[in-house]
Amino acid sequence: MHLSPSSPIGIFDSGVGGLTVARAVMERLPRENIVYFGDTARVPYGVKSRETVARFAEQIARFLLAKQVKMLIIACNTMAAVAYDTVRALSPVPVLEVIDAGARTAVARTRNRRIGIIGTPSTIGSGAYVTAIQRYDQSGMFLATEACPLFVPLVEEGWLDHPVTRLTAFEYLTPLLAQNIDTLVLGCTHYPLLKPMLGSVMGQGVRLVDSAEAVSERAEDLLREMKLENPGQGEPEHVFHVTDVPQRFREVGERFLGRSLGTVRVESLC
Amino acid sequence: MHLSPSSPIGIFDSGVGGLTVARAVMERLPRENIVYFGDTARVPYGVKSRETVARFAEQIARFLLAKQVKMLIIACNTMAAVAYDTVRALSPVPVLEVIDAGARTAVARTRNRRIGIIGTPSTIGSGAYVTAIQRYDQSGMFLATEACPLFVPLVEEGWLDHPVTRLTAFEYLTPLLAQNIDTLVLGCTHYPLLKPMLGSVMGQGVRLVDSAEAVSERAEDLLREMKLENPGQGEPEHVFHVTDVPQRFREVGERFLGRSLGTVRVESLC
Repeated sequence: MHLSPSSPIGIFDSGVGGLTVARAVMERLPRENIVYFGDTARVPYGVKSRETVARFAEQIARFLLAKQVKMLIIACNTMAAVAYDTVRALSPVPVLEVIDAGARTAVARTRNRRIGIIGTPSTIGSGAYVTAIQRYDQSGMFLATEACPLFVPLVEEGWLDHPVTRLTAFEYLTPLLAQNIDTLVLGCTHYPLLKPMLGSVMGQGVRLVDSAEAVSERAEDLLREMKLENPGQGEPEHVFHVTDVPQRFREVGERFLGRSLGTVRVESLC
Repeated sequence: MHLSPSSPIGIFDSGVGGLTVARAVMERLPRENIVYFGDTARVPYGVKSRETVARFAEQIARFLLAKQVKMLIIACNTMAAVAYDTVRALSPVPVLEVIDAGARTAVARTRNRRIGIIGTPSTIGSGAYVTAIQRYDQSGMFLATEACPLFVPLVEEGWLDHPVTRLTAFEYLTPLLAQNIDTLVLGCTHYPLLKPMLGSVMGQGVRLVDSAEAVSERAEDLLREMKLENPGQGEPEHVFHVTDVPQRFREVGERFLGRSLGTVRVESLC
């Protein structure tokens, strides 16, 4: 397989959430071509069995590899927790994922060695962030986790700084505030949209670690090491593949991406 | 096909929501045997195409008909809106559904001929309740609709009378309150759990029409007309089939059903 600097980066998620990762990559690496895949027909993955999630991840990875990507980014916490080994085993190109990147950044940033982690019930229940943080820190940091099931629907409703969302955040985050953490990992690709509100609820003493930004930093480092940065002068190509076009897809997607969605193609995987 | 009074009633939904319908049927018809089917592996249906929803509905209906049911109840607003004709065409037994039942009851109850309808974005967007109400009333009632996307996740979180839920309800329902309606149709199988809270937000002047109760009344009438009421003396049999057992399934399911779930069987349809 010949990798060229002009090859695209492949980014995939179970739905629209991974568009926050695509956005972070576009902002950090504005010359890179990107192919995004969102499995909108089969979202959400969090309630599916490990075997099913791994099978879906394999299908998507093969689809993107056929597009000659030079790197794969798993922009979905559920797939990162369950299917990283599967994807890495079949991929001839490097595979990055949001959990490892977020964990690494959190360990580097904390000063008092007390980290909080928030995510969907499925991500928190998997223990994947705790395991990943322990991989980068053997000395035993204090870790507190909290599942926040309503944040995803609140973001999809667009209530990013609504009184309802703020009240929900106080309800979920009060236990973490009581633990004197100095770092909070946003362990879900929907949460970057809540960053201003979460920052004001947590206060200035707590740094927020955004896994989307963290994985885009890792992608930048890796492309530099591999000498695969795209030097292209023209406009980069960004193509979005989805398996279904749900109601309000463009509206919600553009809120996540922070810009207009260009070409959207509907694909069938099964 | 031989129908016997002891044959079960088949009730189906895309997930757990239809358990509120099963509950209403159990309360109204305590001697009836019931077979419930919830397609928990493929929920939610609201974001899927009409063709896909119709195909899934057909698979489920055939599964229940093979259990020799004497009646089918579509306890899912999405399937009722999209797949009623498909199910009726293949079913040798009567088919009831929540939208028709809720619409009929609302038309019978309103005094000032001003009805509000709330539901998920997919149900409201389908216009199915408006069409159904117009079927029972040709004189042109005033109808106001409002999509309430956060109610489903709030119910699944168990925040049935939480300040967040109340604030969300005021946000969604204020436009309906301003319309002087006297009847509000709860057009989603999750909403019966919010009834006390919704009743206090809407005030005493507004009657709530619960589609689960409405369809159980229709089932009672129809069994009487067909002389198929179960005279059985013993404990009725209630069996629950699902396609996946998601996290917290039993806890959430029992909250919906209002009693303990007995036998739960996991089935594969595809």
